[in-house]
Amino acid sequence: MKILLVGEAANHAGKLRAELKIPTDVVALPREAASDPAFDDAIGPEDVVVSLRFRRPAGAPPFRLLHVPGAGLDGIDLATLHPGCAVCNVFEHEIPIAEYVLAALLEWRVGLGRMRAAFTPQSWSDLYRDRPPHGEIHGATLGIVGFGRIGRAIAARARAFGMRIVAVDAFAGDGGGLADLVLPPAALAEMLAEADFVVVACPLTEATRGLFGDAQFAAMKPSAVFLDVSRAEIADEDALYRALESRRIAGAFLDVWYRYPTDASEQVPPSTRPFHDLPNVFATPHSSAWTDALPGRRYAVIAENIRRLVVGEPLLNLVRAAS
Amino acid sequence: MKILLVGEAANHAGKLRAELKIPTDVVALPREAASDPAFDDAIGPEDVVVSLRFRRPAGAPPFRLLHVPGAGLDGIDLATLHPGCAVCNVFEHEIPIAEYVLAALLEWRVGLGRMRAAFTPQSWSDLYRDRPPHGEIHGATLGIVGFGRIGRAIAARARAFGMRIVAVDAFAGDGGGLADLVLPPAALAEMLAEADFVVVACPLTEATRGLFGDAQFAAMKPSAVFLDVSRAEIADEDALYRALESRRIAGAFLDVWYRYPTDASEQVPPSTRPFHDLPNVFATPHSSAWTDALPGRRYAVIAENIRRLVVGEPLLNLVRAAS
Repeated sequence: MKILLVGEAANHAGKLRAELKIPTDVVALPREAASDPAFDDAIGPEDVVVSLRFRRPAGAPPFRLLHVPGAGLDGIDLATLHPGCAVCNVFEHEIPIAEYVLAALLEWRVGLGRMRAAFTPQSWSDLYRDRPPHGEIHGATLGIVGFGRIGRAIAARARAFGMRIVAVDAFAGDGGGLADLVLPPAALAEMLAEADFVVVACPLTEATRGLFGDAQFAAMKPSAVFLDVSRAEIADEDALYRALESRRIAGAFLDVWYRYPTDASEQVPPSTRPFHDLPNVFATPHSSAWTDALPGRRYAVIAENIRRLVVGEPLLNLVRAAS
Repeated sequence: MKILLVGEAANHAGKLRAELKIPTDVVALPREAASDPAFDDAIGPEDVVVSLRFRRPAGAPPFRLLHVPGAGLDGIDLATLHPGCAVCNVFEHEIPIAEYVLAALLEWRVGLGRMRAAFTPQSWSDLYRDRPPHGEIHGATLGIVGFGRIGRAIAARARAFGMRIVAVDAFAGDGGGLADLVLPPAALAEMLAEADFVVVACPLTEATRGLFGDAQFAAMKPSAVFLDVSRAEIADEDALYRALESRRIAGAFLDVWYRYPTDASEQVPPSTRPFHDLPNVFATPHSSAWTDALPGRRYAVIAENIRRLVVGEPLLNLVRAAS
């Protein structure tokens, strides 16, 4: 058995070797191996392939496990994989995304950045005598659209602050005890009417594209704040800009955007609208999940799954079982 | 029975009236009534006095309850109160202080402020292609000196992020299940050696004055961050400055200071050292507890205690019982 790391995955060969409790050959393949059958000779029937993308329209060779080192499966052509090939993915990004969201809620209400900016040796005495009170997230209502891993990781942290959690999700059941209320998507407006913060944490699908338009922003409290850590297109670009520019809603934290560079040199603005010029918008560059600890956690899961494959234990995060 | 609100407490008469479930006279007294016996004629034996300060060196008149609308008892001369006078205080500031501390930890590791500052429509494409990873508080170790209400409120929130909590406190027992490890004060160095963040949340006493000096900062990891939300004098001013200026420790969040203005016009710098000029210091003006929601929560407790006094139920936060 060999472990074949394709493209960016090869950067983490050292981490994977360190985590593997069993001696195994770890081999790097170039990123072209994700789509070029010319590399199939390097892949044996007992092997594990770790790659974010794998497409073989004419049929993939047999191997035991395709491990995606991320959550998204949009780079994988499941239909053309060999029937004996299992597919697993990894998550772990719910941790940094939830930390980003709580940092945002606290920055909005507590405002450490504002406090720091106002404080100088000269301003100290007057500031101390006439301290402007700030806000608390304690007791505020957090609406979460999409109550999967990310939504629940946000809720678990927000509850520790005494926030009320209202989740909107068709498949979340009772929310695993992490929500005060779980509403179906048809009752979105009910959540919007009471939430102090609305976080978008659902995937982009045909059902969620444009889910937030003029009517949804109008249904929010004027004091409410909108946060998107999923995909920009879930909110209509013009409607979101109008709601923020007119102060129909109080503010937004936007980590995802409407336009992305498509190659190594393209320069595109993130939106056709000047969100960046609005003082009530906190704009960040799709960074919420991008932490130094994330690859280590992900490759620890991959190493654990390779161990399980070798000893015949059930795989974690199984997307498709080998038949 | 009347409720006498002395000085600043009178600003909250409306809140208290709204919370009181029983019809009661609520009367304002000027701040001088805290120290001037000339106002004693206004205080009847069935009354409740709400005041941050109360001193009667020659003996106080009889009344039923002195309710301090804060935690500190340093403005109260307990020895000269009438034996039949109960004394209670209120807390609730552990909530905003804990929010401030978590905001600080997240700002240090996640860095929303830095992300926002770097993001422009022009920088977007390059930033997205080459996103610098940030940190996580997940898995980090939080050392907390003083594991009372404030320390525990911080711990309860930090644990939801997957932080390891090491408390240092002589009287915290097992930490109420909120700490992974509780150490006695003599073992402070053991906590300092492993903490990524060290929060001072203990009171200033003769035992804690100057508790942090050169040796304690030297015992911390060079990557560690020091936070003080209690009293500045717990850290030696020069030693703290040296540790930060030399990068012996990585940074600090300081909300409490070495010099305070003593009257309505005095201008003093917060320290004799230029902490403000150090880029690794987040300086804020003793604001961590200062929120718009705090007085409401405190006067709700005071109203509840007045109800309890009237119906004869045990008082909350009893500092001294009536004999």
